[in-house]
Amino acid sequence: MAQLRIALAQINPTVGDLAGNRRLVVAAARRAAEEGAHLVALPEMVVTGYPVEDLALRNSFVSASVRATRELATDLDRVGLGDLPVVVGHLSRREGAVPTGFAPHGGLPAGAPQNAVAVLHRGRSVLTSAKHHLPNYGVFDEFRNFVPGDTLPVLRVHGVDVALVVCEDLWREGGPVAAARAARADLVVSLNGSPYERHKDDVRLELCQRRARETGAALAYVNMVGGQDDLVFEGDSLVVDADGELVARAPQFDETLLVADLDLPDRTDPGVPDGTEVDGLRVVRHTLSDTPVTPYPPRENTVTPRPDPLSDTGEVYHALVVGLRDYVAKNGFASVLVAVSGGIDSALVATIAVDALGADRVHGLLLPSAHSSGHSVSDAEELAKRQGFATRTVSIAPVVDAFEQAAADVGAPLGGLAAENLQARVRGTLLMSLSNQEGHLVLATSNKSESATGYSTLYGDSVGGFAPIKDCWKTLVWDLARWRNADAERRGQVPPIPENSIAKPPSAELRPDQLDSDSLPDYDLLDAVLDAYVGTDKGEAELVFAGYDRELVRRVIRLVDRAEYKRRQSAPGTKISSRNLSRDRRLPITNRWTV
Amino acid sequence: MAQLRIALAQINPTVGDLAGNRRLVVAAARRAAEEGAHLVALPEMVVTGYPVEDLALRNSFVSASVRATRELATDLDRVGLGDLPVVVGHLSRREGAVPTGFAPHGGLPAGAPQNAVAVLHRGRSVLTSAKHHLPNYGVFDEFRNFVPGDTLPVLRVHGVDVALVVCEDLWREGGPVAAARAARADLVVSLNGSPYERHKDDVRLELCQRRARETGAALAYVNMVGGQDDLVFEGDSLVVDADGELVARAPQFDETLLVADLDLPDRTDPGVPDGTEVDGLRVVRHTLSDTPVTPYPPRENTVTPRPDPLSDTGEVYHALVVGLRDYVAKNGFASVLVAVSGGIDSALVATIAVDALGADRVHGLLLPSAHSSGHSVSDAEELAKRQGFATRTVSIAPVVDAFEQAAADVGAPLGGLAAENLQARVRGTLLMSLSNQEGHLVLATSNKSESATGYSTLYGDSVGGFAPIKDCWKTLVWDLARWRNADAERRGQVPPIPENSIAKPPSAELRPDQLDSDSLPDYDLLDAVLDAYVGTDKGEAELVFAGYDRELVRRVIRLVDRAEYKRRQSAPGTKISSRNLSRDRRLPITNRWTV
Repeated sequence: MAQLRIALAQINPTVGDLAGNRRLVVAAARRAAEEGAHLVALPEMVVTGYPVEDLALRNSFVSASVRATRELATDLDRVGLGDLPVVVGHLSRREGAVPTGFAPHGGLPAGAPQNAVAVLHRGRSVLTSAKHHLPNYGVFDEFRNFVPGDTLPVLRVHGVDVALVVCEDLWREGGPVAAARAARADLVVSLNGSPYERHKDDVRLELCQRRARETGAALAYVNMVGGQDDLVFEGDSLVVDADGELVARAPQFDETLLVADLDLPDRTDPGVPDGTEVDGLRVVRHTLSDTPVTPYPPRENTVTPRPDPLSDTGEVYHALVVGLRDYVAKNGFASVLVAVSGGIDSALVATIAVDALGADRVHGLLLPSAHSSGHSVSDAEELAKRQGFATRTVSIAPVVDAFEQAAADVGAPLGGLAAENLQARVRGTLLMSLSNQEGHLVLATSNKSESATGYSTLYGDSVGGFAPIKDCWKTLVWDLARWRNADAERRGQVPPIPENSIAKPPSAELRPDQLDSDSLPDYDLLDAVLDAYVGTDKGEAELVFAGYDRELVRRVIRLVDRAEYKRRQSAPGTKISSRNLSRDRRLPITNRWTV
Repeated sequence: MAQLRIALAQINPTVGDLAGNRRLVVAAARRAAEEGAHLVALPEMVVTGYPVEDLALRNSFVSASVRATRELATDLDRVGLGDLPVVVGHLSRREGAVPTGFAPHGGLPAGAPQNAVAVLHRGRSVLTSAKHHLPNYGVFDEFRNFVPGDTLPVLRVHGVDVALVVCEDLWREGGPVAAARAARADLVVSLNGSPYERHKDDVRLELCQRRARETGAALAYVNMVGGQDDLVFEGDSLVVDADGELVARAPQFDETLLVADLDLPDRTDPGVPDGTEVDGLRVVRHTLSDTPVTPYPPRENTVTPRPDPLSDTGEVYHALVVGLRDYVAKNGFASVLVAVSGGIDSALVATIAVDALGADRVHGLLLPSAHSSGHSVSDAEELAKRQGFATRTVSIAPVVDAFEQAAADVGAPLGGLAAENLQARVRGTLLMSLSNQEGHLVLATSNKSESATGYSTLYGDSVGGFAPIKDCWKTLVWDLARWRNADAERRGQVPPIPENSIAKPPSAELRPDQLDSDSLPDYDLLDAVLDAYVGTDKGEAELVFAGYDRELVRRVIRLVDRAEYKRRQSAPGTKISSRNLSRDRRLPITNRWTV
């Protein structure tokens, strides 16, 4: 048996902050060295942050990443970490590509950028390669931004053969996985920037186990943590052995260094030699050292259980907190402003904000109108009191009156929907005015059911720079609120969300006695149809076949299709589903198709 | 020599309107038959409209397109057009693909949708294939939505071998073009959905000429016309002979049937047989008839000159008119509402709207504030008078006062930018209120310089369902206004735009005596830097090397990068440049990179 101690650095890089990301890598490598690791791996594109989107098409950015990676190798060597092989993801360009031009050539992105891997050792990059399988579905546009790699790098460290792959390479049959098997790798190290989705952790573990067995090698999976616009990364870095047994697993969402001691079977078959082509990839071998490590007493590996403290709902809640926290932090905001209405959506958003930032960085605004019920104000005040954030109250009536007068003066007295929307827009403008005056980021409180059906006012309740619960169906919003309260109770704390905000029938309170149920089906039913339509691309016939009422299905489809123009103008918000209403789902506005 | 009369139907389909599009195809085929054509070709995806984006991932939509194409063949036969071969683009799925599932498999889109071609003849589809080269850059996401085709269809009509390709297939070296050459096609027919960009018509003609010479075949290029969200299609259908000589050319932007008589050299080499693989494509031959057409006296072919009545600026103007016209028509709006400020942006937008829809469908709103100069109102009124559209005037001061009072009451008296933005948002809310009350589509008046630098107020002057001049730099806005006035003078009409709106120094009039030049460089210089930064992905060093002042470059880059969040929430608008600020340029909001 060959021993090897590997460290997986589950860190939180920031897109474009090359200097800051370098410092994070050096700090992680230092800790790995202190832990006695023989190899440390960091996530996909850790040097640049991920995803960089069309920054990949800028020569200046690619060059800066290449330079930063080279300087990182020097940094590591200079601080005495040169002997520790450090595997990093970064942005590079295809060997020999000319870094000029800005138009795609032959359908490939300008400048031939690559989602690359480098092994840094003794001040140099000793082995490089690039992601072979490029995802181009869901939120991913990697055929747009990268040229695929065509090598499988195999690094020999203390006699152990380590194959390196990037993210999607692991999810596809063939290619790198097949080449790693042919090369008889002892260990596959997979660098990832794998965005959080509900239930993905279960799929991920199974996939890693299956790939390990197929490849006949142990597998170490390192993923980043943190938020980047719509995306949040959960970490969940893990190690399985060649039989697919889980050896070590990191917690979700926390920055951590996962250290694992591996016992690898002695190699009986050397595998294909350097330069062999396997399934479209050339195996490239590089030896750092053939000498096995001196036998040492392994420590007990950490396996964070699933579910750990987080149930499925708790996991989503945590994703929302991290997504908001990083949007605020990475974009340099000191504070956020939320309109708290006493309803469940704004109560949940404010609670997430307090958990993400602390109560002193959250500002509540109560904006009651003539149609607000008494409990609107009292529930909002109770929410703020329980959580300790400051609120101010502005009655919107005088402003609404001034608008109505102005409209009436030009012969267009406002009624019906126009009068309802006006109230929402007055609130939106007050939020933005305080934001401009005081520098807060405004949080939009729209949920996914609202956004899907268009039951929100463009430039009204949808205003804001970030929409934390944008990807949560209304039924999930309630579940999250209940989970958060129950979690507080488990910890012996006061539940942060007033029960009345959870229990009362939902209403936008834009006209007297208005309830959501006046014009929408029950949310359990609505969300089920929405999830099938949005989440699985089913059409009318398929939804009816699945048991839903035809009239209901038609109505829901029409609502969703007709609200596309509103969604196009909405703020980003944390993706937690397998299909959000933004990059995951790209539909024309001008669209007569309704089946 | 073999004769053949072909007809290219430059029509305007609507995305998702399968029944309407079928009627358009039948009408075009009827006209082609009346003109004695032996073959008629229609644009890419004419059955579904184009681009369908993620509708391609819905099994119900793909099935509907397949069915509509089959029914179209029957329709044509039923009305006596069965003998005329009709070449249509449509959405199909790869042969043998199972139309189930909604997740991508092996990285390919679910259900294996294809951007397909069918030859309809005597009530059946007699030959099908699919686009081989899928564009996945700029505004295109075709790797996301389609599976590439792997055949080159060659149709023998009256002894003439016609190879069929789709759009991008023509723009790339190799593949279909190489296979058409090996097959010794007499004629290549290319179906297109090629979005308008400035100067693209020149590139297109040269490309067609080059490909014809390379292939040794005549080439017929048919493109759609009309608007679809951000995109507008210009037509510019054309025919070149095997020497690359231009034989026929249709006008830009108009629906038309271009009929061309071809004299094709007699074939000396039969080319590779049916089933041969060439450059990754299998040649599939189908014979409709071997008998040459009875010799007939050819008519004179139509070659619309370039520039025709349209100069480069006029061409852009026309694109903007068509883009707006179709957004309004295809989304079912009866009228539009524009805030006319007396400035050049709103004057141009209103003029485009009147040209697109007629003055009676355009409603102007004058929204003067305390800071508006006297000429603001008089220039706007003069604009409306010249063009005959109705206006109403609302003084925004009372509403602004009510907001300021409300903000002061909660200890946040508004000053500086907050006070300026408030005025823009009061205007935006008034526009939306009248839109909700009366049903108009609100037009946003933002130009590209404003949108790039963030010199617009989110939820203020940027409100609207469509932004006609969104992709026009400010300097182009002036050029367009001058062109439109000069064009009117050429026709002996009153120039629609008051000279004062063109000549006066630009100002947002949000504080006393404010001018754009207070805080922005001269627009000639600003637009030059913006165009280089946005349009060619140059970084700071490259822009300085190109001769721009380093401080200016830094400032412009910072402005552009920091406004990304605003652009994410902006309305669609007609793309006229090679890189718009929407789908052409996808950047993270959270982004610390500034070089």
